[in-house]
Amino acid sequence: MKTEVVTLNKERNVTLTAYLQGVGGEFRYVTKRPAILILPGGAYQFCSEREADPVAMPYLAAGYQVFILRYSLGENAAWPNPLNDYDEAMALIRNNAEEWNLYADKIAVIGFSAGGHLAGAAATMSKNRPNAAILGYAVLGEDVKGCLLSAPSTIEAVDYQTCPCFLFSSRTDNLVPIQNSIEFMGALAKYGISFESHIYSFGPHGFSTADSSIQPKETKMSARIPDWVEDSIGWLKEMFGDFGPAGLEVPACKARVNDDFEAQYTVDCTMECLMKNEAAAKLLNDWMTELEQSGNEMVKGVSGKAHLVLKMKLRDVLNFVRLPQMAEALNEKLAQIEKK
Amino acid sequence: MKTEVVTLNKERNVTLTAYLQGVGGEFRYVTKRPAILILPGGAYQFCSEREADPVAMPYLAAGYQVFILRYSLGENAAWPNPLNDYDEAMALIRNNAEEWNLYADKIAVIGFSAGGHLAGAAATMSKNRPNAAILGYAVLGEDVKGCLLSAPSTIEAVDYQTCPCFLFSSRTDNLVPIQNSIEFMGALAKYGISFESHIYSFGPHGFSTADSSIQPKETKMSARIPDWVEDSIGWLKEMFGDFGPAGLEVPACKARVNDDFEAQYTVDCTMECLMKNEAAAKLLNDWMTELEQSGNEMVKGVSGKAHLVLKMKLRDVLNFVRLPQMAEALNEKLAQIEKK
Amino acid sequence: MKTEVVTLNKERNVTLTAYLQGVGGEFRYVTKRPAILILPGGAYQFCSEREADPVAMPYLAAGYQVFILRYSLGENAAWPNPLNDYDEAMALIRNNAEEWNLYADKIAVIGFSAGGHLAGAAATMSKNRPNAAILGYAVLGEDVKGCLLSAPSTIEAVDYQTCPCFLFSSRTDNLVPIQNSIEFMGALAKYGISFESHIYSFGPHGFSTADSSIQPKETKMSARIPDWVEDSIGWLKEMFGDFGPAGLEVPACKARVNDDFEAQYTVDCTMECLMKNEAAAKLLNDWMTELEQSGNEMVKGVSGKAHLVLKMKLRDVLNFVRLPQMAEALNEKLAQIEKK
Amino acid sequence: MKTEVVTLNKERNVTLTAYLQGVGGEFRYVTKRPAILILPGGAYQFCSEREADPVAMPYLAAGYQVFILRYSLGENAAWPNPLNDYDEAMALIRNNAEEWNLYADKIAVIGFSAGGHLAGAAATMSKNRPNAAILGYAVLGEDVKGCLLSAPSTIEAVDYQTCPCFLFSSRTDNLVPIQNSIEFMGALAKYGISFESHIYSFGPHGFSTADSSIQPKETKMSARIPDWVEDSIGWLKEMFGDFGPAGLEVPACKARVNDDFEAQYTVDCTMECLMKNEAAAKLLNDWMTELEQSGNEMVKGVSGKAHLVLKMKLRDVLNFVRLPQMAEALNEKLAQIEKK
Repeated sequence: MKTEVVTLNKERNVTLTAYLQGVGGEFRYVTKRPAILILPGGAYQFCSEREADPVAMPYLAAGYQVFILRYSLGENAAWPNPLNDYDEAMALIRNNAEEWNLYADKIAVIGFSAGGHLAGAAATMSKNRPNAAILGYAVLGEDVKGCLLSAPSTIEAVDYQTCPCFLFSSRTDNLVPIQNSIEFMGALAKYGISFESHIYSFGPHGFSTADSSIQPKETKMSARIPDWVEDSIGWLKEMFGDFGPAGLEVPACKARVNDDFEAQYTVDCTMECLMKNEAAAKLLNDWMTELEQSGNEMVKGVSGKAHLVLKMKLRDVLNFVRLPQMAEALNEKLAQIEKK
Repeated sequence: MKTEVVTLNKERNVTLTAYLQGVGGEFRYVTKRPAILILPGGAYQFCSEREADPVAMPYLAAGYQVFILRYSLGENAAWPNPLNDYDEAMALIRNNAEEWNLYADKIAVIGFSAGGHLAGAAATMSKNRPNAAILGYAVLGEDVKGCLLSAPSTIEAVDYQTCPCFLFSSRTDNLVPIQNSIEFMGALAKYGISFESHIYSFGPHGFSTADSSIQPKETKMSARIPDWVEDSIGWLKEMFGDFGPAGLEVPACKARVNDDFEAQYTVDCTMECLMKNEAAAKLLNDWMTELEQSGNEMVKGVSGKAHLVLKMKLRDVLNFVRLPQMAEALNEKLAQIEKK
Repeated sequence: MKTEVVTLNKERNVTLTAYLQGVGGEFRYVTKRPAILILPGGAYQFCSEREADPVAMPYLAAGYQVFILRYSLGENAAWPNPLNDYDEAMALIRNNAEEWNLYADKIAVIGFSAGGHLAGAAATMSKNRPNAAILGYAVLGEDVKGCLLSAPSTIEAVDYQTCPCFLFSSRTDNLVPIQNSIEFMGALAKYGISFESHIYSFGPHGFSTADSSIQPKETKMSARIPDWVEDSIGWLKEMFGDFGPAGLEVPACKARVNDDFEAQYTVDCTMECLMKNEAAAKLLNDWMTELEQSGNEMVKGVSGKAHLVLKMKLRDVLNFVRLPQMAEALNEKLAQIEKK
Repeated sequence: MKTEVVTLNKERNVTLTAYLQGVGGEFRYVTKRPAILILPGGAYQFCSEREADPVAMPYLAAGYQVFILRYSLGENAAWPNPLNDYDEAMALIRNNAEEWNLYADKIAVIGFSAGGHLAGAAATMSKNRPNAAILGYAVLGEDVKGCLLSAPSTIEAVDYQTCPCFLFSSRTDNLVPIQNSIEFMGALAKYGISFESHIYSFGPHGFSTADSSIQPKETKMSARIPDWVEDSIGWLKEMFGDFGPAGLEVPACKARVNDDFEAQYTVDCTMECLMKNEAAAKLLNDWMTELEQSGNEMVKGVSGKAHLVLKMKLRDVLNFVRLPQMAEALNEKLAQIEKK
């Protein structure tokens, strides 16, 4: 393994540490690797070393190229300095993708506490968006003012270009109220963004990997807290694709759960989204009427459950009325409707 | 193991099946067992057998007495019939606690989909509240109208007497929108109720235990979905206490995360709660001023972060300013303030 | 779930308890189930209830039909009474395979301590051999005399028809010396029988599933001991095949690791086995000479490592010299050599 | 993390790479760390990079200082060169214990395949014995001649000063016969050495950590193989002690399972060991006779089971006859008997 340290901003003491693993040779099939950029916490006042190197190790073990950003802190932290640091680091990593043997479009960011705020900002308001974000007991809403008055809430910034997110935290976090995670999830749900979330029953703020070499053993916390490490690696495999004979495989999970925010209408849009468009609504209503008249019993069930059905994707409704084969024809017709 | 089937309502075809394990003898120390009541799903139209027996097994393996309620369905399901069935079943279990060798105050309920709605109703609006509730891909909000028009949302019903909850679901659930879980968590957070929650990246509705004997193997779903089973058992151990030499041990996790809704003020109330009371606010402000004048540097930090501090418990603020030993004296003074 | 209790021998108080799960309906694809027969321990003096019902539960959860045999004990235990009890039980299960919805050729046996001896005897010397055997801290050698003087060692009884075995035990077992497991494995290796084995660093005899409701919590034992339960289920899936859309799938692991004891020679025999036959040895030597003369460098490496190569399968040698495509032609020639 | 590379022997191209983690500061309580020395495999012909860095990562994540030894290979590998390399490396690590912030008496060695042979040799015949050894699909017996003719079997070298061992391998290893592991365990058992062992049902030779970035995904192997990594870390915690508030805690598991090879007799010797000494045998026989005459029923059971009892520790026999309180008095008397 090779270590490189790049100074990004001497004045503000910003550095990027790279832990780079080899490719090829005995690492059969591995010609490039996915990457992860670590943003340690520390209330924008200091850099929590517990959330730097110890976090790097499990991702290295999982085959990643790993980077640690030590961003602007304390007097240098006035917003948007830390976000600019992130943007610069991500640009550097993407630009060096070939030299550093990594996939430029498979770079995750992971942040803890205030670093989790920065990761949330990276996911929602940066120039160089990451491809996935892991948010550990993150300050995501207005509570961030408690550490950095100039920093904005990330919850309102969630948009349909936000990358998939993995959130974890403790229900009894004694510093960052759990509402930060809940409200961020609500925003992700609104925009159809993929996410996974684990809120553990109890435990303190700032447990890092919760390994016994880091989190004092007498700490009272849920026995499941250390699971987030392997779970986040499993999740990244689903979002980026696992290592396969011809590079990373096709991801098992898509970045968005429906097509509501895509450029054109498809059967993977929700009924709610389609029904808001006059032409699409007419198409669907005509189709359902026709079916109902032709005696399809399932459609009757569906029309009677408008409330539930509105939130389903058209494809799921088709499966429900046992007409999955209609997807293609409907897709063609929907494609002709202009989306505004 | 002994099996009993009790008919609760012949007309509505409501039965309670009991799987009862022995105590004493070689089961050294085990004189009573915790219990769990299973509420299978099925859209209030049918009883999903995949969510009945197969769910019983892991809890039996973990030492529980297990019950399955087959509640009012279809034409018999008009609300509040199912909730009345639940109430009757829980009353019967509690009344038979001695005969059935179980702890009357350590009875969880677990429900799936529409059964998860019933479990949510049990937790929030029943006469005989359970001691913990596990809500599996549950319909918790107004979406319940899609299966049973007369059934109410449980989200608005959450109150400070709601039992601790464990929620799990798939982000891409194609029938029950993920907002059901997110909004229920928001309501639990508002009332300071303990909970744990796992939202997995992707997978269909209705996976039950996700064992390969139940969920067809070709199903595309997150590799972490089957974890909910053991995780829920671990969570119950934290809420009820694990088996120990003198019966169940003291639970590791409390049912509420703070004392805001208790009968009197304590240092385990949030600052926000205390500051709303004039006398308590005066007490705290006087104390902080005094400390600040005495040169305590940490208190300065605290007063400058009012926003963050308001959501913390007074005890955590005391720890933060390194005066944990003041908890007792403050508790005494707070106890004298009348709570309205 | 249906429970049946069959009395096998009234005089000797031998019973078979059946826990039978449903098939079809919502258990899509499941038309039959694999089965497991539990043989609790108790030094052939009593029946350890800790090793009866609590062991049934995890296999039920994994989709098995489960049986518990309460065999001849104490004064009734004179050998071969317990083995006869086993044989009768297995015959009954196989005969009822259709009625009980189970695969007659996918029936495992699991035994603990003295019950592990009986399971070992079932695997090696019974009339109705099981299809797999799980041996928990089992008395397998002459040490069995310590509980039942008339009982034989099973180690010398291992033969090439012995079923695949899964062994687990504690290195510091204070009753059954670890040599029992080691020597049994040695015998399995000699006959090319598939097995898996987990010897945990420390822990007492008789921990059963090691669940906290069974094994007193203050017990000092390796944190990995409870893993045997899920590991044995994973192993059974590999030996029997996992549930799939058309019944149990093709097993991932074969019952024997080579073809040395099969009716005819193949490239899956070890070199050692083949070289003992004059005709096979000539075939291989001629072939190697020819290759060497044709300049194949790898073969030179192989002939110089006779010691190591003798223990390899011919197929692995072919892969090593990068001539895997020769397997078919050699198989044809080997098939013509008569095996004595 | 700091990386150092030390050249141990320029001529033979022997190097020691050190990955060193910080102590103190935020790593509260961690003033020193346990360490592990990695010996990659490669048939004593090349260094398998798959078994170097990727193995380092999980132990770094668990808080270890990690070293990789690239020992003498190919033409330089004539025995005992590799063993001398090991001895030099271990001496260097122990000598630098203070500078490198590690416990000089908590240094494990881990080796794979031929590196597993070297680790086995380190454990049994080196000058600077390690404190624990992890042996991965290791060549331990005469089969080592297949890679290095001059290298000795380690099985016969096992002695009572051999350190605790953790073995793992695949039953169907196509290069190293499973007998290597079985016979090594037999030797460890003979000398009362602590060990843990996992033999997985099937899989190829050389799987390293079995991570998907290392072991091609299409590899057919037991789903449990990757477990060895976390299991070995759990085992090391039991042998070395876990991180605690005052440094590493007291180990949960002792290095030997009885006192048979200690300097003096104790109740933790096996009956077999004690009965071989005339004076000890007389002491025990007199004591048993006395007890039997006093009507102790349990002792009768014991004397009738001489075979089993011989392998038990005297302490376990005392527990069995319900006289644990006699341990102290017997220890005093045994201490006066001279051990030859």
